Amino acid sequence: MLEKGIEEMINFRGSGQSVMELSHRQDEFRFISTMTKLEIRKFLRIPDNFRILLHQGGATNQYTAVVKNLIGYKANRSCMLMRTGMWTNQNIDEIKKHCKDITIVTDAIDEHDCTKISDSSSWKIDPLASFFCMCTNETVNGIEFNWDTFPFHLIPKDIPIVADMSSNIGTNVIPWDKMGVVYAGAQKNLGTAGCTVVVVREDLLGYAEPDCPILCDWNKFENSPDTYYNTPAIFPMYITGLNCSYMN
Amino acid sequence: MLEKGIEEMINFRGSGQSVMELSHRQDEFRFISTMTKLEIRKFLRIPDNFRILLHQGGATNQYTAVVKNLIGYKANRSCMLMRTGMWTNQNIDEIKKHCKDITIVTDAIDEHDCTKISDSSSWKIDPLASFFCMCTNETVNGIEFNWDTFPFHLIPKDIPIVADMSSNIGTNVIPWDKMGVVYAGAQKNLGTAGCTVVVVREDLLGYAEPDCPILCDWNKFENSPDTYYNTPAIFPMYITGLNCSYMN
Repeated sequence: MLEKGIEEMINFRGSGQSVMELSHRQDEFRFISTMTKLEIRKFLRIPDNFRILLHQGGATNQYTAVVKNLIGYKANRSCMLMRTGMWTNQNIDEIKKHCKDITIVTDAIDEHDCTKISDSSSWKIDPLASFFCMCTNETVNGIEFNWDTFPFHLIPKDIPIVADMSSNIGTNVIPWDKMGVVYAGAQKNLGTAGCTVVVVREDLLGYAEPDCPILCDWNKFENSPDTYYNTPAIFPMYITGLNCSYMN
Repeated sequence: MLEKGIEEMINFRGSGQSVMELSHRQDEFRFISTMTKLEIRKFLRIPDNFRILLHQGGATNQYTAVVKNLIGYKANRSCMLMRTGMWTNQNIDEIKKHCKDITIVTDAIDEHDCTKISDSSSWKIDPLASFFCMCTNETVNGIEFNWDTFPFHLIPKDIPIVADMSSNIGTNVIPWDKMGVVYAGAQKNLGTAGCTVVVVREDLLGYAEPDCPILCDWNKFENSPDTYYNTPAIFPMYITGLNCSYMN
C-alpha cells in the first residue's frame, strides 16, 4: 500500500504531477475521491441511502458538525449523549456551546475509571431529542461497545444514532439500518491523518443551522461541485482509499 | 523535496514508522512540528511576537476562525471587509453568519469583473471595528494587492489587519509591524493540501467567543499539549516544512 502511494507521489497515473500537486477540480482528483469513497463503501458495507463525506478536522470537527447539522432535526432542539470517557467528555463540552437541552443518557460510575457504566435499565431517554451521540470505543479511560449487544430498543426509532467510531471502525459489522451517522478520523483504522470519514443517512442532510460554520456544513459541501466546497487533504484521502482497497 | 518526503514515508528518521503512522504525541511528530514552524518563520521572516499555528481546513476554515476569535476584540463587535472577488465574497458570506455589523470597505466597481475597485479616498472605515479583513490576491476574478502601495494609513492602528494570503504568500515581504493575522492554505505556495498556516500576533489570542467551534479556537489549540488539541494532518505538515526548508 505504501509502495503504491510512493509511486503516485511522483507521478500520479501518468499525469506528470504528484498526488500532492493535484487540484481538486482536476479529473485525477475526481478519480481519487471516487475510488476512496467506493473502497470505503465496500469495506464498511455501506448501503446506498448513506452518503460518504471526506472531510478535514478529525472526529473533533464532527463534534461541532453533528450538533450544527442535526439540532434542528426536531422542533424540541434537544439531544442525548452517553458519557463514557475522555472522548465523549470532549464531545459534550463542544455540544454544550451550541445546545442548551442535553440529556446525559448514562454516566460512568466513577469519573476517573469509566470502564463501568450504569445498567441500561437506568438510562435517561429524551423522546424528543434530535439525535443520540455515542463513542463506540473510549480508548483512553472507558469501554468499547459491541453492536450485537447494544440496547437499540431503548432509543426511539425516529431519533438518529450518531456514533464516533474512530478507533474501532472496520473491526465489527455496522448495523446500518439502525444508524443515522457514523464518523471516524481516518488515522486510527482506515488511512492517515487529515482525512475524516463521515457517513450520513441521506434524509439527515439539509437541517444545518443558519450559523453552521462552513467547514462543518455537510449539505453545503455535498451540493458544491464534486462535493468539495474547498480543497480537501488530497494525499491523506488517497492513502485512505488505497488502504481500504488493500483491506477489501 | 519529494524524494526526501518519500524516504521518510517508509521510515521516519530511523523510527521504523512511516511519517503517516506517527502519533502527534510522539517525539518524532514534535520534531516535524518544530521543524515546519521554524522553516516557515525563517522563510516568511516572522518576528517573535507572532505565533505560527498549523491547522486544518484551509483558508475557508479561517473565515470562521477569524470572526469567532476576534469579533470580541473590541466592545462594538463590528468588523470591516474588502470585497474584491470570489474569495472575499465567500469570506463575507461566512462572517455574516456570526457578526451583524459589517462594513464593506470597498466594493468592486463591476460585480463580475473585480479587477477594478473604488479609489481609496472613497473607502468606508469603521473606527470601532474589531478587525479588518482582506484577500491579497483574488485569483478567480479580482486583483492582487502590493504591500508597498497599500494605504495602511487609512486603517486605524488599533484595528488588526487580517490577510488571506493563500495564493501570494512568499512572493513579497510581509510588513509584520502592520499586520494582525496572516493565513494561507499551504497547497498554493508553501506545501500541500491539508496544512493551513495561520500566523497570529500574540496579543490577539484569548478573545475567542464562548461558542467558538473547537477546530477554530486558536487559543484552545495553543494551550493544548504541544499546541495540538487533536491529531493534525501530519504528512501535509511535514511536506510544508520540507518545502519551506528547500526554499530557505
